Amino acid sequence: MFGCGAVAQWVLSGGSHGSFLTVNLAFGFAATLGILVCGQVSGGHLNPAVTFTLCLLGKEPWRKFPLFFFFQTLGAFLGAVIVFGMYFDALQDFGQGELVVVGKNATAGIFATYPSKHLTLVNGFFDQIVGTAALIVCIVAIVDPHNNPVPRGLEAFTVGFVVLVIGLSMGFNSGYAVNPARDLGPRIFTALAGWGGEVFTANTYWFFVPLFAPFLGAVVGLMVYQLTVGYHLEEEAQVKQKKGEDERFQLSTNNEEA
Amino acid sequence: MFGCGAVAQWVLSGGSHGSFLTVNLAFGFAATLGILVCGQVSGGHLNPAVTFTLCLLGKEPWRKFPLFFFFQTLGAFLGAVIVFGMYFDALQDFGQGELVVVGKNATAGIFATYPSKHLTLVNGFFDQIVGTAALIVCIVAIVDPHNNPVPRGLEAFTVGFVVLVIGLSMGFNSGYAVNPARDLGPRIFTALAGWGGEVFTANTYWFFVPLFAPFLGAVVGLMVYQLTVGYHLEEEAQVKQKKGEDERFQLSTNNEEA
Amino acid sequence: MFGCGAVAQWVLSGGSHGSFLTVNLAFGFAATLGILVCGQVSGGHLNPAVTFTLCLLGKEPWRKFPLFFFFQTLGAFLGAVIVFGMYFDALQDFGQGELVVVGKNATAGIFATYPSKHLTLVNGFFDQIVGTAALIVCIVAIVDPHNNPVPRGLEAFTVGFVVLVIGLSMGFNSGYAVNPARDLGPRIFTALAGWGGEVFTANTYWFFVPLFAPFLGAVVGLMVYQLTVGYHLEEEAQVKQKKGEDERFQLSTNNEEA
Amino acid sequence: MFGCGAVAQWVLSGGSHGSFLTVNLAFGFAATLGILVCGQVSGGHLNPAVTFTLCLLGKEPWRKFPLFFFFQTLGAFLGAVIVFGMYFDALQDFGQGELVVVGKNATAGIFATYPSKHLTLVNGFFDQIVGTAALIVCIVAIVDPHNNPVPRGLEAFTVGFVVLVIGLSMGFNSGYAVNPARDLGPRIFTALAGWGGEVFTANTYWFFVPLFAPFLGAVVGLMVYQLTVGYHLEEEAQVKQKKGEDERFQLSTNNEEA
Repeated sequence: MFGCGAVAQWVLSGGSHGSFLTVNLAFGFAATLGILVCGQVSGGHLNPAVTFTLCLLGKEPWRKFPLFFFFQTLGAFLGAVIVFGMYFDALQDFGQGELVVVGKNATAGIFATYPSKHLTLVNGFFDQIVGTAALIVCIVAIVDPHNNPVPRGLEAFTVGFVVLVIGLSMGFNSGYAVNPARDLGPRIFTALAGWGGEVFTANTYWFFVPLFAPFLGAVVGLMVYQLTVGYHLEEEAQVKQKKGEDERFQLSTNNEEA
Repeated sequence: MFGCGAVAQWVLSGGSHGSFLTVNLAFGFAATLGILVCGQVSGGHLNPAVTFTLCLLGKEPWRKFPLFFFFQTLGAFLGAVIVFGMYFDALQDFGQGELVVVGKNATAGIFATYPSKHLTLVNGFFDQIVGTAALIVCIVAIVDPHNNPVPRGLEAFTVGFVVLVIGLSMGFNSGYAVNPARDLGPRIFTALAGWGGEVFTANTYWFFVPLFAPFLGAVVGLMVYQLTVGYHLEEEAQVKQKKGEDERFQLSTNNEEA
Repeated sequence: MFGCGAVAQWVLSGGSHGSFLTVNLAFGFAATLGILVCGQVSGGHLNPAVTFTLCLLGKEPWRKFPLFFFFQTLGAFLGAVIVFGMYFDALQDFGQGELVVVGKNATAGIFATYPSKHLTLVNGFFDQIVGTAALIVCIVAIVDPHNNPVPRGLEAFTVGFVVLVIGLSMGFNSGYAVNPARDLGPRIFTALAGWGGEVFTANTYWFFVPLFAPFLGAVVGLMVYQLTVGYHLEEEAQVKQKKGEDERFQLSTNNEEA
Repeated sequence: MFGCGAVAQWVLSGGSHGSFLTVNLAFGFAATLGILVCGQVSGGHLNPAVTFTLCLLGKEPWRKFPLFFFFQTLGAFLGAVIVFGMYFDALQDFGQGELVVVGKNATAGIFATYPSKHLTLVNGFFDQIVGTAALIVCIVAIVDPHNNPVPRGLEAFTVGFVVLVIGLSMGFNSGYAVNPARDLGPRIFTALAGWGGEVFTANTYWFFVPLFAPFLGAVVGLMVYQLTVGYHLEEEAQVKQKKGEDERFQLSTNNEEA
């Protein structure tokens, strides 16, 4: 049920070279593949913020949340291990044998996110909340049975496009973690692998931001969706049920009218 | 029914860094996501020029048009607010504390469109008409029930590709607004947020072009489609109805013959 | 039945700035959109080499070929007119008021293809044959009812990917026309619009290559497909028919065995 | 049954210019097209490591493996011949008439893979194992009938995305062969075509790595998938069979619960 996150996250952690667009594309479609590979076993949960949202919605029991969080972080940690192994020579070559967190030859940013130098903590916190809220709005829309249904089997591709767009438009500040496990797991790994405790203390304890802001963002995203879209759809659905009509058929007819 | 445009437009307004291709990709797929999220509630209307076309075709009542226009502009305005918040530090850093409309440190172009320095007003007007006409031809083709149907659920992706291609081929002159709301909303925001009235007066009142040309472009696009494609298809459909055959079946057979 | 090519080709001719990848993406997805818009009316024929192949296969009567060729070229010509209009100011600005075929400020290459300076005529001819053959193999595979069927409605997207891949891998020599109409129409336009007869005489009458090589490439591509893939599939289909089994069902079963 | 690999591999070998992203895109979607063209005849086997995996799973008989390997290598060899022909002038121009394996004007890397100068043999071997394992995990997940099914007809596109993501995230070390035939065939061709035996001896017999590591990677990938995902799914399927329910229906219901 849980070990599978490793495979996906490992790919997720992989975009260690190329342009910014390259990284965006890799993260986006890696999310797609992760969901495709594990969808049947764990429901494709790769992001604790998404699991958190599903718990809020009552679609997953809260008791599963800590377990999911642990294994998602473990998966990201193992992914970082594999990336470290694959690029061991390249890391040595780049850092001239040293593993540095801050500065010109810094390599810690390959594994976890660090803020651009213009970014304040407050702005960074807002950035992560907005990014995660955007992700959650889109994911909730995709899984909402009352909304415009993406054809079955394409949900994973759609989520990939969501991650791609978020990266393209909101990745400038700190590298768009929007996933506490994806950030915490590799960060712990870098702390153990030679970068040292500085990965936590750097940038005035920046690591708190990608760890907590996404959960706040999930709450904001869910509220935005419910207030603007979900509420109307549920109302429509109730009206339909009263009329005793087949809901599914009705929805597809509505689609045509819209 | 209407508040939802905000979410989508906010993503739409987001492509504030990266290469030109990056921006094209972000706008294209953001359109896809906007339509997916709001499709069921508002029919995915994000662009007043598209709403205008649907009114011309009699698929939407004219009385809805001002309301849609207002909320689409409001959505784009709110999107600009969020982007401004997310990149507050970066904007301060880039402009050294000043918000400038024209020149080397200009940042107003992040929110609304401004012409390249080679562009005359006449050429810019033509550019916006052609761009919007291309968009409308493609969108009308996608929603035309007599035409080659895109599989249900992929309409949103197809529109995303349309916006991507228009951006790739026609974005050089002024940044392809092709959407009056997407341009006006953020422009009003920049006027209020510190850039000042210059956002309207710059480039000999350029803001008129992306505000009015798209509606003309919509008329041109609709006429081109009706004259070349739509007319033939409707004729075929009428012939079929006379024969009393099931239209849907007939169309798919025709497809194979073609 | 025919006027529609204009719309599509106009988009096709549009990629006049951006990187090489940008151009590849624009051409690829423009082909997709062209086919989607016109699919029902003209069967999406945008390329005389493809029409030529369908005539060879007996799927279109030969008498239609000259008409298609004429209107495809006309469509590309009109597309060039629109691009010329849209970028009139930019062209004036770039060429300092002059329209030049060869040299540093050459702009004729925006409309028709010209060889890189390392390319000989023989190599260029081979290049166009291989490129068109690749296109034809893929297109014939897509429309072959005996082969692995692309889901209905996605044929246009698949063709777009084919054009994208050909551009990415074979566009270096001369810009991959692989379409006589797409090259001839804009070339005639440039001859009339001010670039003069040099567009035909430049590079030792290069214009013959993208005009004739694609037809040879279509023959080669069709032969390669028939010898390697098509032949086996037809044989299989005949065996199946003898057994009096439902062909469609059989094919899908085979798919699973493979 | 076999000649068809040539067509696909030729496209596969094509990405000889453009940026790294360009090459990634070309390889990814070329894989898609190769599978689409030949899917019906040879089941789309383009990669001996994939054939190897299917033999391990008992889905293909072992006796077919050498034949597949031979023709896959032959296909890649013929692909290299065509690319050599297409870019004959460009190669002469670039290398000033010489074909060099190592150094500034090296062109051998267009055809086969060579390691970056920072890479040791051990790290390169690990790199190829991880890359192929990632490919195999994804492909096995796609073809596993118990797992989340990709819609029929989109398998080829999904494989294309897999190759794209692997290239984006793991191509830095040596150019991600992850396919013994794709590397060996063109390497033999370059040895014969003028680059000489150095293509085998260069970088301390590097050619062994992309030849053998992918098979080890296939074993690793298969084990990872079976231990984490496949095992759970088979168990679920057996439980279902005991209950005597229709498996397919059950799976789709489960999907909704997840």
